[in-house]
Amino acid sequence: MISTFQIPSDVQEQISLVEERMLHQTAGYHAQLEAALHQLLASGGKRMRPLLILLIGKMCAGPQEELINLASSIELLHTATLVHDDLIDGSSLRRGVPTLNSHWNAAPTVLTGDFLFSKAASLAAATNDLEVIKLFSKTLAIIVNGELGQLFDGPYNSSLEDYYQRIYAKTASLFETSTRSAAILSRVSEENIERLARFGYSLGIAFQIIDDLLDYVGDATQVGKPVGSDLRQGLITLPMLLFIQAYPETGFVKTLVAHRGLSNENEMEEAIRAIGSNKSIIQQTLGEAQKFVDQAKEALLPFAESDAKRNLLMIADFTAQRTV
Amino acid sequence: MISTFQIPSDVQEQISLVEERMLHQTAGYHAQLEAALHQLLASGGKRMRPLLILLIGKMCAGPQEELINLASSIELLHTATLVHDDLIDGSSLRRGVPTLNSHWNAAPTVLTGDFLFSKAASLAAATNDLEVIKLFSKTLAIIVNGELGQLFDGPYNSSLEDYYQRIYAKTASLFETSTRSAAILSRVSEENIERLARFGYSLGIAFQIIDDLLDYVGDATQVGKPVGSDLRQGLITLPMLLFIQAYPETGFVKTLVAHRGLSNENEMEEAIRAIGSNKSIIQQTLGEAQKFVDQAKEALLPFAESDAKRNLLMIADFTAQRTV
Repeated sequence: MISTFQIPSDVQEQISLVEERMLHQTAGYHAQLEAALHQLLASGGKRMRPLLILLIGKMCAGPQEELINLASSIELLHTATLVHDDLIDGSSLRRGVPTLNSHWNAAPTVLTGDFLFSKAASLAAATNDLEVIKLFSKTLAIIVNGELGQLFDGPYNSSLEDYYQRIYAKTASLFETSTRSAAILSRVSEENIERLARFGYSLGIAFQIIDDLLDYVGDATQVGKPVGSDLRQGLITLPMLLFIQAYPETGFVKTLVAHRGLSNENEMEEAIRAIGSNKSIIQQTLGEAQKFVDQAKEALLPFAESDAKRNLLMIADFTAQRTV
Repeated sequence: MISTFQIPSDVQEQISLVEERMLHQTAGYHAQLEAALHQLLASGGKRMRPLLILLIGKMCAGPQEELINLASSIELLHTATLVHDDLIDGSSLRRGVPTLNSHWNAAPTVLTGDFLFSKAASLAAATNDLEVIKLFSKTLAIIVNGELGQLFDGPYNSSLEDYYQRIYAKTASLFETSTRSAAILSRVSEENIERLARFGYSLGIAFQIIDDLLDYVGDATQVGKPVGSDLRQGLITLPMLLFIQAYPETGFVKTLVAHRGLSNENEMEEAIRAIGSNKSIIQQTLGEAQKFVDQAKEALLPFAESDAKRNLLMIADFTAQRTV
């Protein structure tokens, strides 16, 4: 849950229902699955996607039961993708909690992810809305295809276009599907569905840009992974792309571009330090995120004032302020 | 495709449409996914589940377009589970064709399986039938839960009840979902839906019993894996359960029961040979499979005579005759 933002008590109650519903998905299945899901959900997470879904539902007076199924479905899908991601990356911690693959081998980790996919799909089906169900499986395909691209083509990318495509697949697609689906279930007009989809998309892009910035400037204990993890994995994110544009003659930039990655540990540390301490690059990155936050807020303009709308705007602002 | 059974040309054409539709699922995604799917589908397989779906659709005059989506969905789900299974088991061949994990490492194999799950779910959604969509994700949960049980509790089981539960999760559940869903899409009566579900269930159980028998008596090149693979993995299937009942005093039986598995290679080979050459055990196992084939055929009794019905009955008979 977002800690520095006061969630209204009715939405807080709905978030609790979402947590319960997610935990209930292992009932009747193997006891170890229950334990695994408890551990996965105990690691918390901001429940950002459920929060957006429930607030949009509140703003548009959508049907509570279906929205809770949707929120549970999306959060469980997100959890399932993280289980397989952590296995693939060999990560042993997520948000300070041991990952499944840190104490299990690949087999049960793969299958537990698969089980969570099946339950996320069941919850999507429980919305009884064919459009939402179709969006759900399409989004899973987009997310997985993005990860496969990174594996097959390598993590290196040298253009802003590639970067935005990648963070769309990785993050913004599921944000967009969350808000679009909440809008569909709330039976708003086609125009408003598109506006709310744009809200989710823009927020998702801003969210990932800030995540990528935090990888350079964040507090390792707060971010939950060592500073510079992305670059060490070969990932070129927005701060680095902006640095390459601004300082093409820097030694490590030349190496990076020529070899599509850095292998020398000294150059690696130099690069991480150079970006993390460059105020102009940090400001430019924040500015880019702010552009998407503004787009997100703009998409909400036509909606009547309400507590839920104010909360959604606050979340948008909060997204760009996580670093400062 | 079942080679010794003449598939009617109209159903054969529909099977071709199913193949095309499955292959089309990678359009617009990473080129490597297309290559992987081609390889997976080229290894053939009997297309047993699509065949049952299309024949039931024909018998009940169901809607062709939805039935083709259903058949593609189920076969792709089956394919996705095999991709993750082969990875988990470390299998390098399936039906004589190299598995994905034999030339890829775990990461792209896991993600390709995930991608196929998403596309199978999309095709299920394309049937536009909420009941069918819900059955789809429930069945995936049952299959995965069965595999997890085998991992967590070990492959050993000593009761017929455990055995039947396991082969339900492994095989009969997807057969049952195939035939039940085809019946639902064909808008037959509730009674006939249950009959066709029972047909699929019984056929699936018989199919797996025969598969398990072939592991002891089959020709390794035809079965596509070495004789005795199940026992070597620690799996106790019906022929062994019947042998244990009949010859509790045999040396390897005592070891097996006491240690929940065989670790001595001599005892292993003795066990595989003892069962593979025991006509009474083979006959009993065939008799058990035949019981389920008879149940399957009985479930079709109330349906009017037709070519499609005759084909379904032939498939049932063929299922029990694969060994002889």
